[in-house]
Amino acid sequence: MAKLMTREISEEIVRDVDSFLFDCDGVLWDGNGPIKGSLETVLRLKELGKQVFYVTNNSSQTRDDYVKKCATYGFPAQKDEILCTAYIAAEYLRTANFKDKVYVIGKKEAMGAELENAGIRYTGTGPDPLEGNTYADWLSNIKLDPEVKCVLVGFDPHISYMKLIRAASYLKKPDCVYLATNEDSSLPVKNSDICIPGTGCIVKPVSLASGREPIVMGKPAPNMFEVLRKVHNLEPSRCMMIGDRKDTDIMFAKNCGMRSMLVFSGISSIDDIQQISDTEELEESQPDYYAENLAGLGIFI
Amino acid sequence: MAKLMTREISEEIVRDVDSFLFDCDGVLWDGNGPIKGSLETVLRLKELGKQVFYVTNNSSQTRDDYVKKCATYGFPAQKDEILCTAYIAAEYLRTANFKDKVYVIGKKEAMGAELENAGIRYTGTGPDPLEGNTYADWLSNIKLDPEVKCVLVGFDPHISYMKLIRAASYLKKPDCVYLATNEDSSLPVKNSDICIPGTGCIVKPVSLASGREPIVMGKPAPNMFEVLRKVHNLEPSRCMMIGDRKDTDIMFAKNCGMRSMLVFSGISSIDDIQQISDTEELEESQPDYYAENLAGLGIFI
Repeated sequence: MAKLMTREISEEIVRDVDSFLFDCDGVLWDGNGPIKGSLETVLRLKELGKQVFYVTNNSSQTRDDYVKKCATYGFPAQKDEILCTAYIAAEYLRTANFKDKVYVIGKKEAMGAELENAGIRYTGTGPDPLEGNTYADWLSNIKLDPEVKCVLVGFDPHISYMKLIRAASYLKKPDCVYLATNEDSSLPVKNSDICIPGTGCIVKPVSLASGREPIVMGKPAPNMFEVLRKVHNLEPSRCMMIGDRKDTDIMFAKNCGMRSMLVFSGISSIDDIQQISDTEELEESQPDYYAENLAGLGIFI
Repeated sequence: MAKLMTREISEEIVRDVDSFLFDCDGVLWDGNGPIKGSLETVLRLKELGKQVFYVTNNSSQTRDDYVKKCATYGFPAQKDEILCTAYIAAEYLRTANFKDKVYVIGKKEAMGAELENAGIRYTGTGPDPLEGNTYADWLSNIKLDPEVKCVLVGFDPHISYMKLIRAASYLKKPDCVYLATNEDSSLPVKNSDICIPGTGCIVKPVSLASGREPIVMGKPAPNMFEVLRKVHNLEPSRCMMIGDRKDTDIMFAKNCGMRSMLVFSGISSIDDIQQISDTEELEESQPDYYAENLAGLGIFI
């Protein structure tokens, strides 16, 4: 069962954990800036000689963007301490020695930029408005690029029916690789009657139309941890993931063999802990520890 | 186990079945016009005094459009013999005495027209291009219409991120009704490397972002049959559904207590029959009868 963070537990953690992986939005900051206690906690961990990593499913920004964003709020982030899904997708293709072209549903300035950094050619970013009104129009108008051998889907507010046709059509070829940055259903929004659909809402229709399932780069899949582990030689049992979502952050920790801590400064609340205590089946998405926010760890260390 | 249509079976069917429900695309016609034997079979059934209905999940056309389309190919269709999902959605709301406004993701000339015919107010059809680039823009720019109390999603090639935001936001209110015309994953396309995503690819992201499941108007849900049954006083055991898809047409027959026949002139092939003979679990999507096309029934009657 998940335990509330206490002085005793925090002492054990400081002793047994070398590397702390933080989800960003809803944990370190939100729309209003840094979340209470987060900056102090991260700085204190660095003082104690701990490694700190920033691990986000967001595919709309590059690692360089995150270095700048962290600096704005005072978090001391180096580029190689940042794991974001646009970068991980490019890294995945680079290490697979992918030499063809990628059809990208996603932002040029993030997913396009990371692919360029990795020396990988791509097409598809930017608006792709409706051309023609009937199936016959689409069948005759749409030209596929024969060099495309991978479809990569991330967050793209320019999503359109033309993009869905293209992605699903490329995926008809069994040798076309299908990658998705992440499958978050919605983005955290507080105190608004507006719902902001997440990348999962862009990925799902492509999967449905093509009848295929993507290899997912982001949490809870272990790819981001694998990249970190290789570069920084991490030992999972001496790592802890801190996040605000059970289905991504906590499952990511479980899938990679790390400890986990859930905070209630983003999507989840104490209700998510109480609910699962009653249901054995859901035990697997249970964090090891929980606290209101990062201050719940920081005050003890 | 599904049986190949024979003279013996066809005699039994002519004796025991009064009403024949036909799926249209892939059964009566395809992109090249009427399918071999379909017109002759329908005309022969009419000659024998049978009732004929045209039952389609297509939400891009009105009943009037279908009357015209049928006439073009020689099928003798009256308006009240046509069941299409744009009409069924309007009928569903009319009989529920719905007096508020509907937010429609769908075509104005079909879904809009059928709602107008039923005296129901709506908003949302037509292009809704991206406005702003950040969450903050969307949160501040998007204005919701307080009169909207229903979200209706059908086929809409103008699907956009703005439409997804609006639909998911309206659905945050628990008293907002959520209807979908159908959830077909893709549209039948033969001999092309292009895949045409179906209405399911427009519905799924709305369901995912909102965390809600729609009431589905089309096959395999029984709504279309319920409307037919009321108007024409049908007895399910004396009805037969003929279609080209197991997941929609054949399941629709099963859900409504009708006999079923699968033809291979559209999405399915004989492989779909052979596969399921081996797997008990899939027996439930098994048709009662099958034939290459409608001529397989027509030649015997």
